[in-house]
Amino acid sequence: MTKQITSRANATFKQLRLLAHSARERRKQGRTILDGMHLVSEWTARFGPPELLAVSETGARRPEIGAWLAAHPAIAPYFFDDPLFAEISPVDTPAGILAAIAVPGPPRAAIPEHSCILLDAVQDAGNLGAILRAAAAVGIGDAFLGPGCAQAWSPRVLRAAMGAHFLLRIHEHVALDGIIDGFKGVSVATTLDAGTTLYEANLAGPVAWVFGNEGSGLAVARATRTRLAVRIPMPGRIESLNVAAAAAVCLFEEARQKAAGNVQKI
Amino acid sequence: MTKQITSRANATFKQLRLLAHSARERRKQGRTILDGMHLVSEWTARFGPPELLAVSETGARRPEIGAWLAAHPAIAPYFFDDPLFAEISPVDTPAGILAAIAVPGPPRAAIPEHSCILLDAVQDAGNLGAILRAAAAVGIGDAFLGPGCAQAWSPRVLRAAMGAHFLLRIHEHVALDGIIDGFKGVSVATTLDAGTTLYEANLAGPVAWVFGNEGSGLAVARATRTRLAVRIPMPGRIESLNVAAAAAVCLFEEARQKAAGNVQKI
Repeated sequence: MTKQITSRANATFKQLRLLAHSARERRKQGRTILDGMHLVSEWTARFGPPELLAVSETGARRPEIGAWLAAHPAIAPYFFDDPLFAEISPVDTPAGILAAIAVPGPPRAAIPEHSCILLDAVQDAGNLGAILRAAAAVGIGDAFLGPGCAQAWSPRVLRAAMGAHFLLRIHEHVALDGIIDGFKGVSVATTLDAGTTLYEANLAGPVAWVFGNEGSGLAVARATRTRLAVRIPMPGRIESLNVAAAAAVCLFEEARQKAAGNVQKI
Repeated sequence: MTKQITSRANATFKQLRLLAHSARERRKQGRTILDGMHLVSEWTARFGPPELLAVSETGARRPEIGAWLAAHPAIAPYFFDDPLFAEISPVDTPAGILAAIAVPGPPRAAIPEHSCILLDAVQDAGNLGAILRAAAAVGIGDAFLGPGCAQAWSPRVLRAAMGAHFLLRIHEHVALDGIIDGFKGVSVATTLDAGTTLYEANLAGPVAWVFGNEGSGLAVARATRTRLAVRIPMPGRIESLNVAAAAAVCLFEEARQKAAGNVQKI
């Protein structure tokens, strides 16, 4: 049952093009685009078939995509000419397969008992995606995004996070102070001038990590609200790290300490 | 001595526009563009006045830029109308100040005695910049870039590295195997399936870190050429990290071990 689309007047084409390029439309519809085989297959494995699946001429000839389609005979993709596919793909070099999905509804807004991350105005899609990916890699369950963060389910963030979205509970537009105040473990801010180093901090119990904006860092009021502020010691002559690099260093130090202390869960 | 440029026919305008947008032209001329106050001021502090300095109408009214210009009366900037400045800026939201510089000549190609990083086809400018920034933050001296890496002195890499270029010796187009073979300390590759974890590795001495391509990781032949392969333990359900995040975790683990062992220099 091949559905071949060759016209820009086609309704499915128009819908996919809107979702690929308009953040406003994605928000309004509560839908987004998953670009590439990795995201499409991870999504399908966890949540079942996407609402729409689109494959380009060239994509259909790629062995990896062909094999996946053959293994999922119940999913009938729309096939697009390459030039049309390029218009519905959110990336410059389309991978040849993409899906439209309904963004999972907001998770239950409870203050978690286990470790979590709080992101304050992390604006760059690549940084946000890399932080979510690192969080999923250490087994974090909840990510809270305050106002001013990039849209979590945008194609660029999805791409950078490589499937982390499907493993985390992502809470958007959250008042971070309420989570900091209610968290039963240790809330930790990273600042450049804290007296305590990351390695001196006791990270054996649940930690709520608070990471700030790329340019201006964490608002002072928010940093002082946390139970602890830590500094990542930098023996070199540059004073600050990319926020995603800093987050990875912190999260993996927590994982290292927990593994050393035989704590099973982050 | 104000030099106000208002015409697209102006030779300085044309030169800056070329450098901002053409990787080929940057390579041919051996010049690049530093965008924003941070890079311009760091460069000037270390290496003296840039070849050309350009300021936009709006930029000239920004207190930070005005103060810096007042503190450097010997540097005569070219002033540009905002629309013209937008065309010579390599970024979408121009900071209002940029400089053209001659890229420092290739550093002496000696195999270093201290720790260094080797990058194999790190293609994304943001990742490359973030890795250079993390390396400078821990005090690494040399960065070796193999074929297939992004152009190190491109405006995007410079922006992401936040001045790390001025602290590192950056070697481009390097045959990495020669460095791995000649390095007197421990060469270390990160792979997903190594038996040794990062934290079990002894990083007290000089380390040559080898990091691979975003998609395909490190070529197996190269990974087996190193003295040691390590795995970053990931307790979560995602198997891999962004290369810049992985590099930060490794470099800061080295710094942590060296600080714990009172080793003064990375």
